[in-house]
Amino acid sequence: MSSEFTLINDYFHWDTRHPSVLMGVGDDAAILQPPEKKHLIVSSDTFIEGVHFPKGTAAHAIGHKALAVNLSDLAAMGADPAWFTLALTLPEVDDTWLHDFSSGLKELANQFSIDLVGGDTTRGSLSITITAIGFADEKQVLQRSTAVAGDSIYVTGELGAAAAGLAHLQERVQLDERTAEQCQQQLDYPIPRNAESVIIRKFASSCIDISDGFLADLQHILDASELGAVIQLQDLPIMKSLKSYDSTEIQNFALRGGDDYELLFTIPETNVDAFEQAIQQSNMMCYCVGHIDAAIHGIQSDNQQVLSATGYNHFNENTS
Amino acid sequence: MSSEFTLINDYFHWDTRHPSVLMGVGDDAAILQPPEKKHLIVSSDTFIEGVHFPKGTAAHAIGHKALAVNLSDLAAMGADPAWFTLALTLPEVDDTWLHDFSSGLKELANQFSIDLVGGDTTRGSLSITITAIGFADEKQVLQRSTAVAGDSIYVTGELGAAAAGLAHLQERVQLDERTAEQCQQQLDYPIPRNAESVIIRKFASSCIDISDGFLADLQHILDASELGAVIQLQDLPIMKSLKSYDSTEIQNFALRGGDDYELLFTIPETNVDAFEQAIQQSNMMCYCVGHIDAAIHGIQSDNQQVLSATGYNHFNENTS
Repeated sequence: MSSEFTLINDYFHWDTRHPSVLMGVGDDAAILQPPEKKHLIVSSDTFIEGVHFPKGTAAHAIGHKALAVNLSDLAAMGADPAWFTLALTLPEVDDTWLHDFSSGLKELANQFSIDLVGGDTTRGSLSITITAIGFADEKQVLQRSTAVAGDSIYVTGELGAAAAGLAHLQERVQLDERTAEQCQQQLDYPIPRNAESVIIRKFASSCIDISDGFLADLQHILDASELGAVIQLQDLPIMKSLKSYDSTEIQNFALRGGDDYELLFTIPETNVDAFEQAIQQSNMMCYCVGHIDAAIHGIQSDNQQVLSATGYNHFNENTS
Repeated sequence: MSSEFTLINDYFHWDTRHPSVLMGVGDDAAILQPPEKKHLIVSSDTFIEGVHFPKGTAAHAIGHKALAVNLSDLAAMGADPAWFTLALTLPEVDDTWLHDFSSGLKELANQFSIDLVGGDTTRGSLSITITAIGFADEKQVLQRSTAVAGDSIYVTGELGAAAAGLAHLQERVQLDERTAEQCQQQLDYPIPRNAESVIIRKFASSCIDISDGFLADLQHILDASELGAVIQLQDLPIMKSLKSYDSTEIQNFALRGGDDYELLFTIPETNVDAFEQAIQQSNMMCYCVGHIDAAIHGIQSDNQQVLSATGYNHFNENTS
């Protein structure tokens, strides 16, 4: 690789925080000391312009979001963030872009105490692959396949704002300036729910993060657990300022829009009271939106309407 | 991501071999149990068409080589392969390509006992990022920065054949058919030196793998160790069938061509005899090519010619 591209690495030589990092960026590979008696959770996500974020997205937001979606995967598994590697492919060396991208990445990394330990920079179409590694207690790992009939279904925050922000950007809806800004913020700067995960993992039976959309990701839990679910549509948490818009459209964003990066999880009946108490003590935003039901195939609303995950694909060329 | 791309994952649902893999491909992230008292070695490499391999490279070879370069990084660190993630970006879904690519990847993964534990598939320009994780004993981790004056410099195999193969492909040299085939094999199917690493790590003071070229990678050791080196040019191991070609050109490939994926390492004087014995017992290919010298700045030949790593950039547009 040309020296120009080797220089890019200078943007990513940050001090590491964890004593587990014996050697980070700089050699052929990182040297790490995993803690004893913990599981390692490993997640890889690729982030491509025009597929995972619209062209024109600010470099600072790209840096934030590329790491946020991986932190969100760790949160969904019940793991605490530890280390990540960055594979960055760029069409050209642009110092302003690199400065902004690395700032967005670094601010989130510092906030969530995850250390950059290695990576690679190459020339090509803009693409970012992050591999994030976290630690989890054996008894608190959260999976998709372990929901049980009767469990309550919760989400950690409001749904549909990122999809509304994208729709506004693509002129498919027309939001007022302030609401558009709030939705754009949700689209560009999702906050991964790793702090909430620390509480949730003590009570939950299963968990996933919402990237594909509430219904699609709930369906992943249902498929893996071989169960159905009932959702109270009126309980879906939706940003206040979005409620004045066409309710069918907004509900569609909340159910199918995706890119929310909220946690979607199930709490067994015997844990619900204790979990509700934990929510209040922590001031965590958390909403019960339905329950797991063994008698139902797929997902239904409380008035027995079938709720299908399909019918909406964000970022696809044929989005209408 | 479209369902078409979700289906790609079917190519990569392989059985895992290590009991350390509690859950592999399928959930938001893999769940792994690292061994106690071992270091983790983590390496990420991106592999892009037209940059890291020529357009037209067979999919089977791409699958092999994308993993081989990461296995080579683990070997250079003194680590045994354990797990890897695959981030695969493709312009379109092509079943023949995917079949061949996954076969090339899987054959090498099985041969070196490394388990695919997760990843991501997306649509875009062809690009492969592999993050490989290995285990190493604390006392046998090999770094670049720990060479010592007087150490002997070794390489594990012959140099320059991959660069000669590429030059033939690009019609910069004209090789006979049989030699061209041998060189093409070295270019497409490098064998990572993980088996050799098991022996080398017991004796070596420093190590790197040759990806940028013998001189460039030796310079990385010298920079990190703040030392110089003397190389006996006549001892550079070169494939027999290449020796009938222009010797300046062939020596240039061996010194600066890169893509060899041989290990380049240093053995302290006190270990040389025991190491030479170990080489003979194991039938390992290994050649002593020089020594570390504190009195020299940079790299010199034994007739005091300065050897510069620059002057040759493979795959670059302006390669001449």
